[in-house]
Amino acid sequence: MASAQAAIVGIGATEFSKDSGRSELRLAVEASLSALTDAGLEPSEVNGLVTFVLDNNAEIAVARNLGADRIQFFARTSGGGGGGPGCIGLATMAIETGRADVVVCYRGMNERSQQRFGQPSGYAGAASSISTQAVDNSWTMPYGQTTPAANMAQSARRYMFQYGATSEDFGRVAVTQRAYAMNNPNAFFYGKPLTLEQHQASRVIADPLRLFDCCQETDAGVAIVLTSTERARDLRQIPVRVAAAAMGIGPQHHNMAPVYRDDIAAAPETRIVGEQLWARSGLRPTDMDLAMLYDHFSCAVLMQLEALGFCQLGEGKDLVRGGELGPGGLIPTNTNGGQLSEAYVHGFNGMAEAVRQLRGTAVNQIAGARHAVATGGSHVPTSGIVLTVD
Amino acid sequence: MASAQAAIVGIGATEFSKDSGRSELRLAVEASLSALTDAGLEPSEVNGLVTFVLDNNAEIAVARNLGADRIQFFARTSGGGGGGPGCIGLATMAIETGRADVVVCYRGMNERSQQRFGQPSGYAGAASSISTQAVDNSWTMPYGQTTPAANMAQSARRYMFQYGATSEDFGRVAVTQRAYAMNNPNAFFYGKPLTLEQHQASRVIADPLRLFDCCQETDAGVAIVLTSTERARDLRQIPVRVAAAAMGIGPQHHNMAPVYRDDIAAAPETRIVGEQLWARSGLRPTDMDLAMLYDHFSCAVLMQLEALGFCQLGEGKDLVRGGELGPGGLIPTNTNGGQLSEAYVHGFNGMAEAVRQLRGTAVNQIAGARHAVATGGSHVPTSGIVLTVD
Repeated sequence: MASAQAAIVGIGATEFSKDSGRSELRLAVEASLSALTDAGLEPSEVNGLVTFVLDNNAEIAVARNLGADRIQFFARTSGGGGGGPGCIGLATMAIETGRADVVVCYRGMNERSQQRFGQPSGYAGAASSISTQAVDNSWTMPYGQTTPAANMAQSARRYMFQYGATSEDFGRVAVTQRAYAMNNPNAFFYGKPLTLEQHQASRVIADPLRLFDCCQETDAGVAIVLTSTERARDLRQIPVRVAAAAMGIGPQHHNMAPVYRDDIAAAPETRIVGEQLWARSGLRPTDMDLAMLYDHFSCAVLMQLEALGFCQLGEGKDLVRGGELGPGGLIPTNTNGGQLSEAYVHGFNGMAEAVRQLRGTAVNQIAGARHAVATGGSHVPTSGIVLTVD
Repeated sequence: MASAQAAIVGIGATEFSKDSGRSELRLAVEASLSALTDAGLEPSEVNGLVTFVLDNNAEIAVARNLGADRIQFFARTSGGGGGGPGCIGLATMAIETGRADVVVCYRGMNERSQQRFGQPSGYAGAASSISTQAVDNSWTMPYGQTTPAANMAQSARRYMFQYGATSEDFGRVAVTQRAYAMNNPNAFFYGKPLTLEQHQASRVIADPLRLFDCCQETDAGVAIVLTSTERARDLRQIPVRVAAAAMGIGPQHHNMAPVYRDDIAAAPETRIVGEQLWARSGLRPTDMDLAMLYDHFSCAVLMQLEALGFCQLGEGKDLVRGGELGPGGLIPTNTNGGQLSEAYVHGFNGMAEAVRQLRGTAVNQIAGARHAVATGGSHVPTSGIVLTVD
């Protein structure tokens, strides 16, 4: 084990919109500056930068525009939306091993106005090269699996068949999260209620997934700043310690298509992450005061609750039926409204909400929250973190 | 400081060619299997994978084809050819912090038969998105800086003006490395001599850089396996410990175009790397028995010698004039022939050569070699490692 420990000391974000009107670089830099201000750190103190492979903002561009002249650590996570907590994990490793002192994790994207991941994609890498992603897609795209929703729909349908879950159960996830978003001025659906009847009446996107089972496509920047727990004590905010970070890829993983797995109604990559999180943190699901689970689609929340050990396989539906994800439930989940109802920023906004909850500054504050778990997307190479206030 | 330490325990490569006749995935997997065999480890023991952002082989594809069913760590380095030692550094961090036990770093590319980085590129990211890389390029590409050679030529010309270096000095780098390659059966130029006269007669690619100042574009896979020094003791090869790893981005970095820097005849990113390497390893340039310096272009070797502290600014030319990079010199450099004469695999083949030298199994073996430094490319976000045998 490494001796230094890392803490989240700053969070920042732009507004969440459908058309930011400015570049992804500007979103990333605005969010980073906001997070540094939140922490009480100067941009010139930043010497580490971490983001997703698919972020369009090169470290050199972010460094230049921040005014950070000496970067000693930079790394990226694969797996699309699975990599958010992985970014925090990489920053943590850099701090633990003395490679960097102040690390900014950023995600800036015009994912609604510019590049819509929810639309069919023929992406096959640069014209002159052949990526394994393109080859993997060639096995499923010809059969209509051209979007993330189409891929997840297969898992969702099998989950229903195998465990007796219903479209209403997925709807209950969306409705529960919308209730949180109702109170969140930053949420896209702030003040806009959703009923189970509205969910059931919403159009099918990829059977059995309906419109309100799908996350919001969003233009936004979100950034999270980390430093050592020792330095964190002198800064502006209550330090939120990274008690554990983990990544996971399971067997027979083919992009987002689950069809080659032994069990297509589960999230084995999240299970691998969870096992490591509990082993490294010394904490258990029952110690968690909230969960920020990557909700590209409502059904994924249920599968991740199971994979992390909050319940047994197939019992996620029972948790949501019993109201356990809502206020006062066993495991309040996505208390900002999540990506279904606040915004879709590849999980970075969910991690920021976990930080607010542990600082005691969330709009849907859970009294005395001390421990939170946050995950990246299931069905892709993924990651997770356990956060703690001491 | 972290308590665990990491060592390179296996290296593997395919043949180096101009047309591999097979996929980049196959190259990456063949090299990985070869490196695991070299180490005496089973593919099922691999639980970490690291590569470049620009590698086309997704971790899930490599894991599937290796037969590794549980990946706990995966990360990538930005900066094109700057990231090779950075990959080793990330693997080292994962091992030091207990995130993974056996990490394979891989690079598989058909960089000659499929995707030629040396050719003009209009790359601007996916059609629906705008990358900062494309925006950066828009400042220089309209003026003819469409290739890496065109960018480096500006540094080279300024270096000549500022320090009295000549095209012959660059040629001496190429000739010295070719002499090493002459003895290396795996080198593209095995058995093919190069004289300074031939260098001077070779055609200009981007003035002042001539054909033989430019690296070989190559189809190949190279892989390097790491585990903890403790476990390494029980494996097949002499463990090569990673004494230090570092990354660097300096001020005003714009892709490969050096024109916005205060000093365009230097490699400030390599200087940042070097300062960290010596501080963390407790070693100094004079302790190094050899250097594997990223030679996308001959002139970069001289600038990196200076940036790492092997000599003062502008004195790299004097080292090569004095024969100090050759056998028996002060700092034998690129003893496999380098990327100018062995193969261009984004520095991975150079790191493998450093391992062979420290094991005592290189074709141009330096007697009693115990310490080596290896770098990623200059003029891009870069990285370096110091390797040691105890």
